[in-house]
Amino acid sequence: MEIKTPSQSCTTITDLVLPSETNPIGNMFGGELLARMDRAASIAARRHSRRIVVTASVNHVAFNKMIPLGSVVTVEAKVSRSFKSSMEVFMDVWIEDRESGIRSKANEGIYTFVAVDEMGNPVPVPPLTPESELEKTRFAAALRRKQLSLLLAGKIKPEAATELKALFD
Amino acid sequence: MEIKTPSQSCTTITDLVLPSETNPIGNMFGGELLARMDRAASIAARRHSRRIVVTASVNHVAFNKMIPLGSVVTVEAKVSRSFKSSMEVFMDVWIEDRESGIRSKANEGIYTFVAVDEMGNPVPVPPLTPESELEKTRFAAALRRKQLSLLLAGKIKPEAATELKALFD
Amino acid sequence: MEIKTPSQSCTTITDLVLPSETNPIGNMFGGELLARMDRAASIAARRHSRRIVVTASVNHVAFNKMIPLGSVVTVEAKVSRSFKSSMEVFMDVWIEDRESGIRSKANEGIYTFVAVDEMGNPVPVPPLTPESELEKTRFAAALRRKQLSLLLAGKIKPEAATELKALFD
Amino acid sequence: MEIKTPSQSCTTITDLVLPSETNPIGNMFGGELLARMDRAASIAARRHSRRIVVTASVNHVAFNKMIPLGSVVTVEAKVSRSFKSSMEVFMDVWIEDRESGIRSKANEGIYTFVAVDEMGNPVPVPPLTPESELEKTRFAAALRRKQLSLLLAGKIKPEAATELKALFD
Amino acid sequence: MEIKTPSQSCTTITDLVLPSETNPIGNMFGGELLARMDRAASIAARRHSRRIVVTASVNHVAFNKMIPLGSVVTVEAKVSRSFKSSMEVFMDVWIEDRESGIRSKANEGIYTFVAVDEMGNPVPVPPLTPESELEKTRFAAALRRKQLSLLLAGKIKPEAATELKALFD
Amino acid sequence: MEIKTPSQSCTTITDLVLPSETNPIGNMFGGELLARMDRAASIAARRHSRRIVVTASVNHVAFNKMIPLGSVVTVEAKVSRSFKSSMEVFMDVWIEDRESGIRSKANEGIYTFVAVDEMGNPVPVPPLTPESELEKTRFAAALRRKQLSLLLAGKIKPEAATELKALFD
Repeated sequence: MEIKTPSQSCTTITDLVLPSETNPIGNMFGGELLARMDRAASIAARRHSRRIVVTASVNHVAFNKMIPLGSVVTVEAKVSRSFKSSMEVFMDVWIEDRESGIRSKANEGIYTFVAVDEMGNPVPVPPLTPESELEKTRFAAALRRKQLSLLLAGKIKPEAATELKALFD
Repeated sequence: MEIKTPSQSCTTITDLVLPSETNPIGNMFGGELLARMDRAASIAARRHSRRIVVTASVNHVAFNKMIPLGSVVTVEAKVSRSFKSSMEVFMDVWIEDRESGIRSKANEGIYTFVAVDEMGNPVPVPPLTPESELEKTRFAAALRRKQLSLLLAGKIKPEAATELKALFD
Repeated sequence: MEIKTPSQSCTTITDLVLPSETNPIGNMFGGELLARMDRAASIAARRHSRRIVVTASVNHVAFNKMIPLGSVVTVEAKVSRSFKSSMEVFMDVWIEDRESGIRSKANEGIYTFVAVDEMGNPVPVPPLTPESELEKTRFAAALRRKQLSLLLAGKIKPEAATELKALFD
Repeated sequence: MEIKTPSQSCTTITDLVLPSETNPIGNMFGGELLARMDRAASIAARRHSRRIVVTASVNHVAFNKMIPLGSVVTVEAKVSRSFKSSMEVFMDVWIEDRESGIRSKANEGIYTFVAVDEMGNPVPVPPLTPESELEKTRFAAALRRKQLSLLLAGKIKPEAATELKALFD
Repeated sequence: MEIKTPSQSCTTITDLVLPSETNPIGNMFGGELLARMDRAASIAARRHSRRIVVTASVNHVAFNKMIPLGSVVTVEAKVSRSFKSSMEVFMDVWIEDRESGIRSKANEGIYTFVAVDEMGNPVPVPPLTPESELEKTRFAAALRRKQLSLLLAGKIKPEAATELKALFD
Repeated sequence: MEIKTPSQSCTTITDLVLPSETNPIGNMFGGELLARMDRAASIAARRHSRRIVVTASVNHVAFNKMIPLGSVVTVEAKVSRSFKSSMEVFMDVWIEDRESGIRSKANEGIYTFVAVDEMGNPVPVPPLTPESELEKTRFAAALRRKQLSLLLAGKIKPEAATELKALFD
């Protein structure tokens, strides 16, 4: 299969925060952001694999900044590493200041998707080669996250989590 | 005020068509697409003006292609011409084929926004200089559309609609 | 086919503006109104044709007045002219004052629908005869709008747009 | 206060049933219809009283017919009787056949609203005089329903429910 | 069929009131609560019958207390009596104070559901035996409500409404 | 501050999967489930702290099973460990078979919330004592997850992540 780069799956959703998407204190409702991220990430995974994809897990989402009503929010999703039939998607969430136009990072998140055929069986996905420094860092970390996830689920032994173990040596 | 280009306001919403956004025959509901276009266009107008913006009119939207459930739809909005305090925003709507990755144009639309201050009074917006050939064509046509709109509303006389009149000479 | 009048397709949606339908400054979100208009217009076109109908274009919507949260909004849609298999639908949008009960016009809009069979192929629709003065004015203007639309799309030559051309003579 | 008729509060919502408003077997979701009825009835009560109104109770809604996806549904609401500060609103729900244009009754429902001032305190509402035979029948029945409701809530004794008692004599 | 108790069908929906679920004066929109109650009640009826169930009627809902934005609302639904193929479901609606944790009753409601087979034909449902005092009271009242409903619909004569008639003797 | 148990914060949302909450292949849309989990978890955190709470992070959500349209889904949330002003909330997601009534685990998820005062500043929350075996296991694992999260964010050094490090010794 043809090797792909993260930019080939890059997906951008830029949208407003309307009143129907806020929580009682006037900021974007967490669940709404999680849903937008799921939509962006699934499109990125689909662009990488050109297959039907299903959400396998949410690995991490950090809500570092409140996002007030009326904000312009950009979710940018790229596949950060592909495994046999699963893909890790890394997302950056930005908000931009109306007057200055400056955008600042609000959150980030990592989801995993699996490519499947019409019967729902996993199918192989293309390999991925990172290009930028940031893409390379995320590519490397993705393996540690995968080992951690398997370890916490009891599917591998600590000694097999070589990348993770190295952190503590 | 600083002159801006259409790319400086370029806004992209790439999103799925979920079942809650379809009509009874399984295609994207027209009203849902009109709403997404309104969101994209208002962000483009806000990026151009760095002001609060309100929708003044929908000038034209052509639904050339059905957009089936499950499609990935991209709305791309750019300011096509700015007047005293109003801005015309031109949008292209694309859908992409999952297997081939090829994207094709589904629709296009033109909305007009006005920049206002906190009291709702119109305020001036930066001038715009088109760069690409397509941007130049749309910039020129925007004046004809503006004259047409004023003419149909009875706000100018036919002889003042110089650009439009030229079409028939 | 039986000739019909605009009143035979008249469709009314009277509804509230709830918080989930507002924009960040507390007025009805433009996209929400466009969606309600699409629903009303499609029912009017369906009543005229008794066929499945699909939105072909939005020809014009003018947002003349802000519609604040809590308003009672009435969208009134009537077929204004029918062509071979397409129908132009004209809509008036009203808001009413709670205390005095007086209603005032907020917006208007024009959409075009096409009647299709189960395979999606266009089918003929009944002719329409306007009755009131307003209906007659809109019926006449519909032809100019149709020519304009064909002209702008490059589907007819300026000299064929006879009704439109007459405006400038 | 000026006496009003039921027609003065008549409110019509004609709308489609889209996929987002159906239950898992493809008919209109009951809760969605109850919500539309609440919106229609509250506008009727507001038109009668020209006051802020709040839902006091749902007295009865009968779901006699399934309403399939894609139907055109009309909710027609009229104040059927007014008391000191409360109003009973009677609603008829119709669906219409696309091909024949014939409409048939699907459901009916009765809600009660109270008119309040800005502090939420009940305020008097205008008296109502029914005109048509159907309006007169519903006006009479409204008193029995009111007594029944007070009786079931233990707020009046059986012997005070004169209208209701008469049914059994 | 196995006899069941009300607790076997007990269904709880505890949820927030977000801005998209409020009315223009900042309280939970009546229609939204009616929809949540329909969802809770239909699950209770399904748990009792283990069949497909459809809403037959809303018998009564009293809105005694405003439910402000940001509240935590609990809808608790239990089958209160079963008939041949229909089931009455009684619901209590609670809100809880954030600081003290004390919960208080806001509303209550009664809906009726019918169990059907895949063709939509009514099928028998299990009998129900109430356990607590409250369940026994509601079980007894359910028969009066059923007679009342049949009486008002003209399906039985006053003298057949024995339970109801007894109220007035 | 009074010590609390996980059961004191236990929050249950049992709800249907309606068509508006599905993805294009007819299963519950991942983003919708993430949103419901956010609502359930925030109520649990609020019940534990009796404070305003905001989502700080999603630590892990595993989607092990597809949840088809029409399912009855139960999200059960309990605070699993409290720190200075943050609380980890553990959720189990169940679906139940209509005919047999048997429920099976579909997913699980872990979110973290922070308690804040009206100004948005973190405030202390009550300590938590687990009771059941499962609660004790989750309580212990919560510390490892916290250290891991701080470690991955570069806020502590590997040697300070004592609990985590022990896994590899």
